[in-house]
Amino acid sequence: MASHAADITDQEEELARLRERIQGRLDQLLPQTDQRDLVSAAMRESALAPGKRIRPLLMMLTARDLGCVQHPGLLDLACAVEMVHAASLVLDDLPCMDDAQLRRGRPTIHRRFGENVAILAAVALLSGAFGVIANAAGLSDTQRTRAVDELSRAVGQQGLVRGQFLDLSEGNATRSLEAIADTNELKTSVLFGATLQLAAIAAEATEAAGDALRGFARDLGQAFQLLDDLADGRSDTGKDVAQDLGKSTLVAMLGSDAVHQRLREHLKRAEVHFAHACGPRTPTQAFMHAWFERQLNHEAPAMSTVSRQRQPS
Amino acid sequence: MASHAADITDQEEELARLRERIQGRLDQLLPQTDQRDLVSAAMRESALAPGKRIRPLLMMLTARDLGCVQHPGLLDLACAVEMVHAASLVLDDLPCMDDAQLRRGRPTIHRRFGENVAILAAVALLSGAFGVIANAAGLSDTQRTRAVDELSRAVGQQGLVRGQFLDLSEGNATRSLEAIADTNELKTSVLFGATLQLAAIAAEATEAAGDALRGFARDLGQAFQLLDDLADGRSDTGKDVAQDLGKSTLVAMLGSDAVHQRLREHLKRAEVHFAHACGPRTPTQAFMHAWFERQLNHEAPAMSTVSRQRQPS
Repeated sequence: MASHAADITDQEEELARLRERIQGRLDQLLPQTDQRDLVSAAMRESALAPGKRIRPLLMMLTARDLGCVQHPGLLDLACAVEMVHAASLVLDDLPCMDDAQLRRGRPTIHRRFGENVAILAAVALLSGAFGVIANAAGLSDTQRTRAVDELSRAVGQQGLVRGQFLDLSEGNATRSLEAIADTNELKTSVLFGATLQLAAIAAEATEAAGDALRGFARDLGQAFQLLDDLADGRSDTGKDVAQDLGKSTLVAMLGSDAVHQRLREHLKRAEVHFAHACGPRTPTQAFMHAWFERQLNHEAPAMSTVSRQRQPS
Repeated sequence: MASHAADITDQEEELARLRERIQGRLDQLLPQTDQRDLVSAAMRESALAPGKRIRPLLMMLTARDLGCVQHPGLLDLACAVEMVHAASLVLDDLPCMDDAQLRRGRPTIHRRFGENVAILAAVALLSGAFGVIANAAGLSDTQRTRAVDELSRAVGQQGLVRGQFLDLSEGNATRSLEAIADTNELKTSVLFGATLQLAAIAAEATEAAGDALRGFARDLGQAFQLLDDLADGRSDTGKDVAQDLGKSTLVAMLGSDAVHQRLREHLKRAEVHFAHACGPRTPTQAFMHAWFERQLNHEAPAMSTVSRQRQPS
């Protein structure tokens, strides 16, 4: 028991160190050279604001589980994915999209900097992410090219863009369970997919491991989206409350108990996939397990409880 | 004289063939698989609408002048640059940017498809461009990586994004001639720069040739922006009339005669740079010369003449 607690403390410290490295590198990659450059300021605000850093952490932990230790370019790949994630949040929050007022407990980027600067910052983050990959140290150009291809697919017409379009255009209509799962996959799983493929590329993992990680990303993304849906309606998320009101989410259709159960099934399947890629009981699995438990325990007791601390996205 | 006319006819036919190849490849790269997918429709409308195709043409002609004939991936690089150009036009036209109603003689993308679809289409075109480069045939991964790096720089924080930001934030204030030229460089020259560098990368040109092409792009971009400023106020451009009203453009500050003279000086310098890279009197130079002469002759007689045909951008 004491050793279990020590393990958890070790892991917390390790995660804190990794978060610090990610934060430090993002800070270098997104310099504020000129105070009048509002686009830089908006890029920094959106990418450097305190967040879970779940994607870059997941990439770095997975790469290590795949045998890739102290890779000089991995941190940059992780930051590239976080830059894309930040850009997608800026765009999703725009008045013509979800029209969100709060993100990570602060006013959204377009409210602080104006819509035009918000859009330009998102574009610069996106295109910057590809540049970061093209210049990441310690990778062959073949690895860089594969990483660019993966990230481009995750963002584009069949990825985040399509997820956001489906969410906007079908969100208020009645949808089948399948349609909701498809949209959730595009909104969340595809970027997890790219995150894990970039880890596999850096680690020179086998094709079989890469495939297993694709399965892991699918289930993980679904679990995340369900967690997000369960959290909507609470005021302690750092985001707008009841953003999904009127949308046909799984919570609205099945109730939160059934969604909890589905979430746990996705997590179980995700663990099986991950074990195929990296073996059982790895640090990444321990991290994901602990993270979801914390979120679920926070969330479970009372859907209406307010002003509880929950790590913002 | 007869032979000169024959040369021009040959060149016109050659350009028409190249335009057709570019159009055909863009059509393949941007398929409309599902009629309900408005993002795809908006991407196609913005990239396939009749345009000058000046950047892809310039890339293909320059690569040939550099000795690169029938390269299997050049067409894809050319389309990638055109996709970025199309994305930048969609974003520039948004209500929160230039709030334009017309582009290429048609309602702007956000007017036809809504702001959210317009933004998503631009993002998908941008990220798709990097994917097209990553998959372009006949290039080494080192060439692909260099091309991604070039394009990323041209779009991002020190490229098109910064040009648009400066244009928005300084456009209505009094600016120095230098500040106007700097903004024009970022708005126009940087994407010409990437266009020509991609040609140089595909052609495996020397570093000296690449440097000369950077100089060419700078002067060419300035010449283009001046042409655009001279054309503002005319109703035959397929764009909103007098979009620059109130902006401190060089035409407003110096008058159109002086701007004409500056434009010709930029063109002369551009020719010298190009000759350093590819030698004198190449087909590319003939093309650019003929193109500018046509635009200038169209434009010169009367700034206020309406309903004349001018190739839309």
